Amino acid sequence: MSDSYERLIAKLKRAHTLGTVAGLLGWDEQVNLPADSADQRAEQLALLSELQHAAASDAEIGELLGKLEGGANSRTADEAVVVRAARRDYDRVTKLPAEFVAEKARLSSVAYHAWAGAKAKSDFAAYAPYLEKHLALAKREAAYLGWGDRPYDYAIDKHDPGMTALKITALFTELKAGLVPLVRAVAASPIKARPDIFKGFPVEAQREFLREATERLGFNYRRGRIDVSLHPFCEGAGADIRMTTRFDANNPLDSLFSSIHETGHGLYEQGLPLGLQGTPLGQNAGMGVHESQSRLWENQVSRSRAFWTFFEPRFREKFPAQLAAVSSDDLYFAVNEVAPTLIRVDSDEVHYNLHILLRFELEQRLFRGDLAVADLPAAWNALSQELLGLTPVSDKTGVLQDVHWSSGAFGYFPSYCLGNMIAAQLWFTVFKTLPGLEADFARGDFSRLLSWLRKNIHEQGRRYDTLALVEHVTGEELMPKYLLRYLQERYAPLYLK
Amino acid sequence: MSDSYERLIAKLKRAHTLGTVAGLLGWDEQVNLPADSADQRAEQLALLSELQHAAASDAEIGELLGKLEGGANSRTADEAVVVRAARRDYDRVTKLPAEFVAEKARLSSVAYHAWAGAKAKSDFAAYAPYLEKHLALAKREAAYLGWGDRPYDYAIDKHDPGMTALKITALFTELKAGLVPLVRAVAASPIKARPDIFKGFPVEAQREFLREATERLGFNYRRGRIDVSLHPFCEGAGADIRMTTRFDANNPLDSLFSSIHETGHGLYEQGLPLGLQGTPLGQNAGMGVHESQSRLWENQVSRSRAFWTFFEPRFREKFPAQLAAVSSDDLYFAVNEVAPTLIRVDSDEVHYNLHILLRFELEQRLFRGDLAVADLPAAWNALSQELLGLTPVSDKTGVLQDVHWSSGAFGYFPSYCLGNMIAAQLWFTVFKTLPGLEADFARGDFSRLLSWLRKNIHEQGRRYDTLALVEHVTGEELMPKYLLRYLQERYAPLYLK
Repeated sequence: MSDSYERLIAKLKRAHTLGTVAGLLGWDEQVNLPADSADQRAEQLALLSELQHAAASDAEIGELLGKLEGGANSRTADEAVVVRAARRDYDRVTKLPAEFVAEKARLSSVAYHAWAGAKAKSDFAAYAPYLEKHLALAKREAAYLGWGDRPYDYAIDKHDPGMTALKITALFTELKAGLVPLVRAVAASPIKARPDIFKGFPVEAQREFLREATERLGFNYRRGRIDVSLHPFCEGAGADIRMTTRFDANNPLDSLFSSIHETGHGLYEQGLPLGLQGTPLGQNAGMGVHESQSRLWENQVSRSRAFWTFFEPRFREKFPAQLAAVSSDDLYFAVNEVAPTLIRVDSDEVHYNLHILLRFELEQRLFRGDLAVADLPAAWNALSQELLGLTPVSDKTGVLQDVHWSSGAFGYFPSYCLGNMIAAQLWFTVFKTLPGLEADFARGDFSRLLSWLRKNIHEQGRRYDTLALVEHVTGEELMPKYLLRYLQERYAPLYLK
Repeated sequence: MSDSYERLIAKLKRAHTLGTVAGLLGWDEQVNLPADSADQRAEQLALLSELQHAAASDAEIGELLGKLEGGANSRTADEAVVVRAARRDYDRVTKLPAEFVAEKARLSSVAYHAWAGAKAKSDFAAYAPYLEKHLALAKREAAYLGWGDRPYDYAIDKHDPGMTALKITALFTELKAGLVPLVRAVAASPIKARPDIFKGFPVEAQREFLREATERLGFNYRRGRIDVSLHPFCEGAGADIRMTTRFDANNPLDSLFSSIHETGHGLYEQGLPLGLQGTPLGQNAGMGVHESQSRLWENQVSRSRAFWTFFEPRFREKFPAQLAAVSSDDLYFAVNEVAPTLIRVDSDEVHYNLHILLRFELEQRLFRGDLAVADLPAAWNALSQELLGLTPVSDKTGVLQDVHWSSGAFGYFPSYCLGNMIAAQLWFTVFKTLPGLEADFARGDFSRLLSWLRKNIHEQGRRYDTLALVEHVTGEELMPKYLLRYLQERYAPLYLK
């Protein structure tokens, strides 16, 4: 290792550490912040953001990268990964003029409030001008980075390195072809899950159960915690991963599965090489891969018969009276209920993908200029009817439901569906590789699965782009057929028997 | 206001904001940090400490101060306060060589662990070398700041601006003369508080009661919170003040009074002018004044008959069975029990002052060179016998009981006793000024007291040095007679009737 390389690592770690401090302040804001302390927190975060930007755009990083890129032959494979990824990050930070960054931050702040107000009143017109400005900024941003001819690809690549709209279109087209018939068949099925079987589940017992479940899945509470916030999330890095959930006495599965979802994210972060924290070798491979981990643990693992074979007696121990009249089949069906909803975040894992297809289609049209922002609500509603069989009664439950665009986060939604596809493909691979895995789960042992994910996904850091990682681990290109097969195998026995 | 002045304020606020971030990380470390995340937190804090030091020692602050000090005539009184205090802070930050600061930080880290180990084994000899090094560093530090001939005064002045060992000696001598006879008389009294009346007080009900009590005293929970930590403390600044407490089902008064103590600190911080945060006008006046606020609310207010007139029914409502056989007099006596103990932090408010007199005497001897570190345990034990009538059975409950010296915090202990004296003098002043205050308390109304403290103490910021503030507010020099009178009036009716 050269002096330049070591110096580069030190510089990267410094910027990373500032990022972890900002992350903790953000976590604290959602979990602990007193009602009237928000302005002070905003000032703290603004200063940290300035310092982090300064550290990440430090001219010495550029000089060190220049030196290290010149000496390509003398680098190890790991060092090459670091230099390549660090260059990518450095360019992203330094090629954007400070005025542009400030303008986008200001717009995001006012657009967030405009979105919240517009959503409350179902008044899309009040939000439209901010969306137009964000679209214009997104195109300018792509141009600064040299992607002026492919601004939407740039937006996608920011979240999932190497991914493009064309590749996603191919994947989503095949997925849609298989998914829509399944959804139609399930909707037409006379078999339905028993409604309203969850009433009066005390929060403290819910907390105990989810703690036991997430710990058994492998989350290390000596290097993390779970708290309560309005919306569940996972924040933190390295040795300190903080998840959140929320509780509803009449909806224990929401809390449980959102906790397990965040546990999937948390397991990934805990599995990244700790000693390489702050360097690309200690960083996650992108949003799609991250989401594959949360989805795999939430859906493939924790909605499975094997998982409930082990956990059902424990669940009943916590809630004996509440579950007295609920059969094992009722419980399993409730865990795997499929029903269309207008709201993405309330969606089951089958319909979820259709929500993403809708947003991906609309983002493409917006970036191509085929669709004016003013026409977005009508286009949304038409696609919603086509894909979900439901038309929003108001924009509040339609085009205004998501916060993402208010911060200019275009190209983010596809990651969710990519994550679902990756999770399913990993699922079939791991089952081929590790025989008897379901018997493990039925005994409450998830360690072989976790070890496999650690070795094949987590410990790879940012070594591969999204698709390359999938191919490296599964031996095949990413293919929608695995997600389709998984959904068919899980839901046909419930709904199509 | 000149451009230079505004620029200075911006620079001071920047350093302050970094300090508040470090403070939040410190709070989180005590309240939330997962077991194995300490190394990562240490890295974050080290980086923030570096950045804060850089911000506070920014050469431009020195230039701006130079300019502003030159234009003395054109400054307002407020600006003069800011420039004077900022100069003091800037010199303290910049006159210490970086190597010295690093050396002291390193020593404090190893000395802390040496102290903890030595305390566990009651092995003073293992700790002594670190104490000797800290003493040497404290003298060097004083010399860097131009106090080479009066290193102990420098240590005192750091905590209580303007205070000296000579002034403290005069105060403590008079205090001792009055206090020792009172303590002896109480010890000789056959009247004792009922032991062991507190058993099985559920933590949740304790939490509810202390929340109600501290809120009613005036703590604004929209700008602060209370959590649990091993040792109670108060941290934070401006709009976000975080207190902690601890719970013991068999000792509800410990939790309650430590919470009220921290509430006193918190009320002071919440009462500092929010808009001037980060400038000397928005900062507290020193440790003695800070401690006067915590003590006044903890002791004078919350151990009073009037306080319990209002709160006793509420306390009984939370713990009806537990208090069924406890009379009002039993309860009031338990709140005001006086009994000598070897341990300062477990001490009642009467004996507490003797613990401080002991430490002050020994610190003086150490700094004068009259006492070798090796002879400290013997000197401690002799003084303990003389003042408290108790000789430690081992150094663990004697010279090794306090953490302070392991970080080189000499000159800090006197602040606690100064705080007691200031609190008592304020108490008599406010009673003279606001007739009927006890009737307020008996109705659960503490707002007139808080408003008076806000106006006279909190909103003054760092406008006055410790003694000047006391004189400004009470119209008299600081005098021990008020503390003596308060203790006599409170404890004679209980013990000497």
